[in-house]
Amino acid sequence: MSQKYEQIYEQLCQHARETALLTATESMLGWDERTNMPPEAAEYRAEQMTLLSGIIHQRRTEARLGEWLGELANSPLAADPHSDSGTTIRQSKREYDKRVKLPQSLVEELTRTASLGQHAWQTARTDNDYRTFQPLLAKTFELKRAQAEALGYVDEPYDALLDDFEPGERTSNITRVLADLREALVPLVSAIAHSGRQPEVSILARRYPTEMQEWFSRGAAAKIGFDFCRGRLDVTAHPFCTGLGPHDCRITTRYDEHFFNTAFFGTLHEAGHGIYDQGLPTDQYGLPPSEAISLGIHESQSRLWENLVGRSRAFWKFFFPAAQQAFPDCLADETLDSFYFAINDVRPSLIRVEADEATYNLHILIRFELERALLNDELAVADLPDAWNAKYAQYLGIRPETDADGVLQDIHWSAGLVGYFPTYSLGNLYASQFFAQANADLGDLSSQFAHGEFAPLNEWLRMNIHAHGQRYSAGELVQRITGKPLSHAPLIDHLFQKLAPLYGLK
Amino acid sequence: MSQKYEQIYEQLCQHARETALLTATESMLGWDERTNMPPEAAEYRAEQMTLLSGIIHQRRTEARLGEWLGELANSPLAADPHSDSGTTIRQSKREYDKRVKLPQSLVEELTRTASLGQHAWQTARTDNDYRTFQPLLAKTFELKRAQAEALGYVDEPYDALLDDFEPGERTSNITRVLADLREALVPLVSAIAHSGRQPEVSILARRYPTEMQEWFSRGAAAKIGFDFCRGRLDVTAHPFCTGLGPHDCRITTRYDEHFFNTAFFGTLHEAGHGIYDQGLPTDQYGLPPSEAISLGIHESQSRLWENLVGRSRAFWKFFFPAAQQAFPDCLADETLDSFYFAINDVRPSLIRVEADEATYNLHILIRFELERALLNDELAVADLPDAWNAKYAQYLGIRPETDADGVLQDIHWSAGLVGYFPTYSLGNLYASQFFAQANADLGDLSSQFAHGEFAPLNEWLRMNIHAHGQRYSAGELVQRITGKPLSHAPLIDHLFQKLAPLYGLK
Repeated sequence: MSQKYEQIYEQLCQHARETALLTATESMLGWDERTNMPPEAAEYRAEQMTLLSGIIHQRRTEARLGEWLGELANSPLAADPHSDSGTTIRQSKREYDKRVKLPQSLVEELTRTASLGQHAWQTARTDNDYRTFQPLLAKTFELKRAQAEALGYVDEPYDALLDDFEPGERTSNITRVLADLREALVPLVSAIAHSGRQPEVSILARRYPTEMQEWFSRGAAAKIGFDFCRGRLDVTAHPFCTGLGPHDCRITTRYDEHFFNTAFFGTLHEAGHGIYDQGLPTDQYGLPPSEAISLGIHESQSRLWENLVGRSRAFWKFFFPAAQQAFPDCLADETLDSFYFAINDVRPSLIRVEADEATYNLHILIRFELERALLNDELAVADLPDAWNAKYAQYLGIRPETDADGVLQDIHWSAGLVGYFPTYSLGNLYASQFFAQANADLGDLSSQFAHGEFAPLNEWLRMNIHAHGQRYSAGELVQRITGKPLSHAPLIDHLFQKLAPLYGLK
Repeated sequence: MSQKYEQIYEQLCQHARETALLTATESMLGWDERTNMPPEAAEYRAEQMTLLSGIIHQRRTEARLGEWLGELANSPLAADPHSDSGTTIRQSKREYDKRVKLPQSLVEELTRTASLGQHAWQTARTDNDYRTFQPLLAKTFELKRAQAEALGYVDEPYDALLDDFEPGERTSNITRVLADLREALVPLVSAIAHSGRQPEVSILARRYPTEMQEWFSRGAAAKIGFDFCRGRLDVTAHPFCTGLGPHDCRITTRYDEHFFNTAFFGTLHEAGHGIYDQGLPTDQYGLPPSEAISLGIHESQSRLWENLVGRSRAFWKFFFPAAQQAFPDCLADETLDSFYFAINDVRPSLIRVEADEATYNLHILIRFELERALLNDELAVADLPDAWNAKYAQYLGIRPETDADGVLQDIHWSAGLVGYFPTYSLGNLYASQFFAQANADLGDLSSQFAHGEFAPLNEWLRMNIHAHGQRYSAGELVQRITGKPLSHAPLIDHLFQKLAPLYGLK
């Protein structure tokens, strides 16, 4: 009997490994499209990717897969939910059940609308004309409601969508944590804005030669632990990180000769994603024990290296002399203090992707509240721009002058990504909570960073987070590692401890 | 009735287009492996490519394909062999029939032996130890005989193998042309060796900075007609050209800071392949009317641009001033004449890939005669090194001191590529015969080159060769364009006209 289950389980694993070979191939085509592909090759590449994703979708919804999972779900192999087989069966069944719940016609309609939506959004943003985008946005939220109904939910439709990006997370939990965060962040940001202090940010806007930026960023990525024998760093308009196999993680960045932060912190951010990817167990590649848990946990790894480490004073105690050598015309006459203050400049701004570590989460909060209200029919799509502008005034104290700088700035909704935004803030929250624990476990991380020692933190992350793959949900992992549920407190503590001295707050 | 055939034909075309999407994906994985892939990713990439080539092989040998082709072969759609449908049906049936003739066990044995053979060859070459390679080489020729028997042939087994690389070509025809070529070449090469003249080749061995070499080669490739909106140039250890779609042709080169020829003529060579690829009709991509005819014709396009154009005096009349500006330390004090003589240096040498335009074909002739004798059991694998060395003495007047510089220098036989070598010489022969005709049709090509005008030749090649895809076989195409069958005469004329003045021959 047990042998029967083992045979079925082996078939399941073999099937998943072959599917992974194909999804990695699809990722390869996508990576090439963004890094290298000649301009006129786009149409054929799209055909290739459509064919491949069709083959993959077909494999993932095969009836025999459902039969295998039905047999295995109540077998001894699934008894321990955190074992290899238990994890694989649970997570595979979860994915399979979700996939077959969606009618083919709805999937096609969602794909079509996302494609049209992105085109309409691009035009609308360029023309600063929300009205031309509005019908497709309305259609998108209609379809997302239908998707939520088809998938099912306990409390509210948003749960069903959120689950795609942050499996097992609940809207009520996020609402609670983000509300706490808002209560603490709004007065903090306001106090900074009224502190009368500002760093000399022009330091970062001098001419930083691209070649030296590349050399310096690449060196820092390697130093913090990104393995270039198992990865690459390239240039793209929109930076990203993608895994093409168990030993092939590719990150990208972009260079702005007149702004230091873009490439450097962008590279640290993507390297953080890459270090997670490279830290996942390789022996079960293609199976859930070797896969990332959620977008929120992924983002926690990038934010941890970018902000908790990369914007710390200790990090720059080690790196600033090298930066002065690499960019003598920009930094030779500057002090560590002035540079450190400049890279930690906090000020309310309109554009999310340019926001600082503190105000960033208010941008996310606004989007979360709005998309949830839209989905629940508590807000009409026609009223969205006004609602957007009102929230910016309320939380950040500034108001967009145009929709292009307001509600039209992000691609997400146009692409059907509803329920995605909170994962950015979850990333910041997890990062702070993990980092506080690592600091407690490893002694004084600051003095390690100041000596260029990043391996202990890296190893801690690998053992506590990366090595588990999908064995635990994000919520379980936070509880397991820190002994507490997700909380806003570690992030607020981190921000206050860093920013209070800089801005003279009490 | 006719509608029935049209439906079947449409199914056939759709099937082929989808297969092409997958083969282009496989090529993408291969290109990335050679240009970008991180070192530790090799094993997983091999798994990906094995899976994909399995899927492709399965598609190409599907029984329904045989049924469709059986129906179509005698239908009105196949009546005109040079029409779109006639070409597609004929060529698809040809490929299908060949594929299904080979027993699966033989295919697997060939694949396995090729893999083992390449490893054994690499070790044997490093250790200069032919004996360790000999058993696998014997096994390879045994399997190639079995392959020839399974495929069938008219005159001799070599015909069956040659047909894989140069469809429709016959051993007897190649034997005739190469024998004529040898009769003329051996005395020409000997006369040059005894002429008492030699160019100052050290000109080419000065320090040519890599960055400027790249700039200069890239500019020349674009100038002769390689379209960078539909292609790329990258760096690899072994240069190649690969097509990843109708508008995505990628070529590579390598740089030697202390030898001008490597990158420059290598780039012209690959750009020549690329221009053919880019000149094929795009509207039927994936079907025979949009595909290259043969390796020989492909090589004719690369050799034409590399040698007939790129090593001509007229070409350098245009490019030499730019070269002097790009490489002032190397060329500012040199004359066009001395540079032109240096890039046309002819002297017998041991290594095929480093051979000049004239002696190159003698290297090929030796390999052709030997592999044919091995296949016909007229030469024992144990006696191959002696036979090799004897032929080098006879045709080139030099004798390898080691097998590493002799019989072990090429990878081809170890990889099971028997019948491949002649396509290199066919390329040179076709190139000269086409070029002579183009010169006759277009007036004085030299004066066009001297003014940097390459578009007329390009357009002539596109109209006469590229545009036809596989409508005509290589032999038919030569006859059609030049009014004559393949001949050694145009190549010998070209070499004599160029080399006689340089070496003072009569």
